[in-house]
Amino acid sequence: MRMESYTSAEEYLAALESRAALPAGFRVSTASLEFRPLERAVSRPLPMNLALILLDRETPEFAAVYTANRFPGAPVAIGRARLARAGIRGVLVNNKLANVCTPSGRADAERLLGALGREVGAPGDAFLPASTGIIGWSLPVAEMEAALPSLVQGARGGSYVPAARAIMTTDRYPKLRSRAVGPGRIVGIAKGAGMIEPRLGTMLCFLCTDVGVGRDELRAALAWAADRTVNRISVDGDQSTSDMAVLLSSRAKGPADPAAFREALRQVLAELAADIVRNGEGTSHLMRVTVAGAPDDASATGAGKALVNSPLVKTAVCGNDPNVGRLASAIGDWAGAEAPWLNPASVTISLGGEQVLAGGAFRLDAAKEKWLAAYLRDAAFDPAARGFPAHDRCVEIGVSLGGGPGAAVVLGSDLSAEYVRENADYRS
Amino acid sequence: MRMESYTSAEEYLAALESRAALPAGFRVSTASLEFRPLERAVSRPLPMNLALILLDRETPEFAAVYTANRFPGAPVAIGRARLARAGIRGVLVNNKLANVCTPSGRADAERLLGALGREVGAPGDAFLPASTGIIGWSLPVAEMEAALPSLVQGARGGSYVPAARAIMTTDRYPKLRSRAVGPGRIVGIAKGAGMIEPRLGTMLCFLCTDVGVGRDELRAALAWAADRTVNRISVDGDQSTSDMAVLLSSRAKGPADPAAFREALRQVLAELAADIVRNGEGTSHLMRVTVAGAPDDASATGAGKALVNSPLVKTAVCGNDPNVGRLASAIGDWAGAEAPWLNPASVTISLGGEQVLAGGAFRLDAAKEKWLAAYLRDAAFDPAARGFPAHDRCVEIGVSLGGGPGAAVVLGSDLSAEYVRENADYRS
Repeated sequence: MRMESYTSAEEYLAALESRAALPAGFRVSTASLEFRPLERAVSRPLPMNLALILLDRETPEFAAVYTANRFPGAPVAIGRARLARAGIRGVLVNNKLANVCTPSGRADAERLLGALGREVGAPGDAFLPASTGIIGWSLPVAEMEAALPSLVQGARGGSYVPAARAIMTTDRYPKLRSRAVGPGRIVGIAKGAGMIEPRLGTMLCFLCTDVGVGRDELRAALAWAADRTVNRISVDGDQSTSDMAVLLSSRAKGPADPAAFREALRQVLAELAADIVRNGEGTSHLMRVTVAGAPDDASATGAGKALVNSPLVKTAVCGNDPNVGRLASAIGDWAGAEAPWLNPASVTISLGGEQVLAGGAFRLDAAKEKWLAAYLRDAAFDPAARGFPAHDRCVEIGVSLGGGPGAAVVLGSDLSAEYVRENADYRS
Repeated sequence: MRMESYTSAEEYLAALESRAALPAGFRVSTASLEFRPLERAVSRPLPMNLALILLDRETPEFAAVYTANRFPGAPVAIGRARLARAGIRGVLVNNKLANVCTPSGRADAERLLGALGREVGAPGDAFLPASTGIIGWSLPVAEMEAALPSLVQGARGGSYVPAARAIMTTDRYPKLRSRAVGPGRIVGIAKGAGMIEPRLGTMLCFLCTDVGVGRDELRAALAWAADRTVNRISVDGDQSTSDMAVLLSSRAKGPADPAAFREALRQVLAELAADIVRNGEGTSHLMRVTVAGAPDDASATGAGKALVNSPLVKTAVCGNDPNVGRLASAIGDWAGAEAPWLNPASVTISLGGEQVLAGGAFRLDAAKEKWLAAYLRDAAFDPAARGFPAHDRCVEIGVSLGGGPGAAVVLGSDLSAEYVRENADYRS
C-alpha cells in the first residue's frame, strides 16, 4: 500500500493535479445549472453539474460494467444496449438525480444525447449516459439541454480534475488515480460515498487510456479488474441502481502488452476503490479485511463482506472499541447462513496483526485490549473534515478460515452518527 | 394489531403486571452481583443480573430453538445437548456476558449449573443455561456461584416481571406477553435490542405454560411459531451467538387443543417480536413490511429483510424523509443478487397505503411527498425515551412482487445516530 497523508485540501488537490493529465485523444468539460424538481415543492432551486468526456474521434475500444440492481436507471439500460455499437464518442454525466424509474426516464436521456450529438456533430447514440443522485425524480431536460452548447464548446485536454469534481454528490473530495502503461497511461475518476456495495459493476467510474489492447481484451480486462477491486468494497451494503464503470481507449499512443495493461488497470481501480471507501459517508475508519483459507475467492469475499457490513463491527470500530467478540459473531452469523463447511476451531482472527481468536477461543488480556484500543484510535480520522483524506491508514483485520486456497481483500468503512445524519434527509 | 400507547413507565409496568402472572407450576427469582472482567482493566466493577426460572417438578415437555451462528455460545451448545434429556427443571440466565468462545466457557456453565442443582436438590444437567451480553469475556464464576443460594431461596410464583427486567441488557424496557389457551395460559418474556436478526432461533425468549400438548407437538409448535414471528424481524441484521427461545410446560392445568395452542403461541411470540424491534437500540420508527406475490414465503421474507436491513432505507425513515427511491433500490439490489425471476414492471410498492411505484415507474407528486413526510413524522417516537413504548404505530410498507403465492410480514427498525452512539462503546 502507498503511504499518503494530507493536511489541507490544497495539498491534496496538488497531488491530484500531478497525476491528472488526460491521455492523448481526450477532452473534458463541465457545466452547472439549477432546477426545481416536479416531485417536490422546494423553496430554492437545486444545483446540478454536467460533465462531458469527449474523444477526438469515435473508438471501437470501449468497455463498461453495470449494476446488477433489478431497478437499473435509464442510463444503465441505454448503456448496456450501446455496448453492441461499433464505436463510441464519449460520455455525458449528471449528478443530483439518478434518472431511475421515472415515467419518461429513457426518453429524457435519449433526447439529451441527441441534442449533445447535434452540438458535437455525431449521432446521439455514439454517447453513453450516466446519472447519479436522488432516485425517483425526473431529469430537468430543458435546463440540461440549454447547458449543452457551452458544455461542448468548453471541452479541453489537460486536467481530468474538473470532471472528477463535477460528478461528486455526497463525496467529500474528488478521486483521481493514474498509472503509466506501455507507451501511454490510464487515468480514472470515480464518485461514490453511500449506497456502495457494487456487484458486477460499480459506482460511477470513468477510465480513459491512450493505449490499445483490442476491444475484446479491453472488456475482459475491465471485468477482471473490477471483480478484484470495486466489487470488494462496501460502505453500507446497498448496491445502487446506477453503478457503472466505463473504460475508453483513444489508442492515440498505440498498443500495450495486455498483461501489463490488466495489472495497471487493476492498480488504478484498487486505488479508486480505496478512495471511495475512505471518503464514504461519515466514514471515520477504513477496514481492510484480508481473508484466507476459504474454499474459493467468492467465499472469502463473502466472509470479508460479512465483517465490513456488520453494523455492530462498524460501530465498535467507529468508537475505537476493540470489541473482537463482534468479529467472531459476524463470521459465525455468515457461516451459519452460507458456510456450513466452516469448522470454528480452525478459524483465526487478528486485529492490527495481533491474534485475538484461535482454536475456538479468544486470546485476550487487559494489556492486549489496551494496545488494540490505541491501534484503533491511531487509524481514525475526522469524518466531518472535508476536501482531503487526512491519511491512508487502515484497520487491518485478518481472518483465516482453515478451509482451502480461496482468498480476498475486502475494504469497508465504519458506521458513525455522521452517516446517519447525512442520510436521514439526503434530499433536503 | 393491538393499539397501545403509554405516557409513563409506571403506566407501562401496570399493563405488564396485568398479564404477568406465572402459569401454575412455575416460580422465578432474580439476583444481582458485581465483578471485574479478567480481559479488561476497569476502574469500577460491572453489574450482572441472574434470573432463575424454576419448575415445581421436572417436565418432559420442553422445547428450545437456537441460533444458527457458527460461533455459538457455551449455553447454546449445552442447551442443544440437553434437548435429548428426559426432563428439565428450569433455566438459569445471566446478562452482561454472553459466555462465547472463552477458554473455559462450557466448564464454567456446567460448574454453575452443578452448584444450582445442589441448592435445588436436582441434577445440574436438569437445567438449561442462558447468557447474554459481551462476547469474548469469561463468566465471573465465583461471584455467580456465591449468589446462587439466595437466588434459589427467593424463588416465588406470581409476577414474571422481575425476570423480564433482570435479563435486559441495552433493552429500554422489559417485554412480557401472554395469552389464555385451553384451561391455562402461555406467558413469555424476551430480551434483545441489538445484534438482532434471528434465524432458526431468536434472542433470549423464555415462554412458560401450564397446559400440555405433548413433547413432540410442543417442539413442533415452537419451531412453527418462531419461524413466523421472531425469525422475521431485524434491528441490525446481525444474528447473535446466543439467540434462543425456550418453551417450558408444567402441564399443571392439563391438556390443550394443539391448533389453539399453536395460534396462542404464535400470537405471544409475534407480540414479543414487535416489542423487541420497537425497543431496538436507537429505534425511532418501527417498519412493518408486508410482502406478497413471491414464489414462496422464504423469498417474500428475503425481500422484506432487504428493505428493513438497508441502511439507506433505515436512515431515510429515521429522518421522516419519504425517499421512496431507496425502497425500489433495495428491492432491486436484493433481486439482482437473489431473485432473477423478478420482473420490475410487475412490482408495486406502497408507503402508508399510498402507492409510490407501479409499472416500473414512480407515482409521485409534490402533494403526495408532503403527505408521506407527515405520515412518517406521525409514526416516530423518541429513541432516547426509556422505560416504556410511547405507542405502537408502524411505518407500513407494502410490496407486491407479482410472482406467486408467497407472502411474509417482516418487522424492522430504523437507524438513528442513537444506535451508533450506543454501539460505538457498548462495553465501557
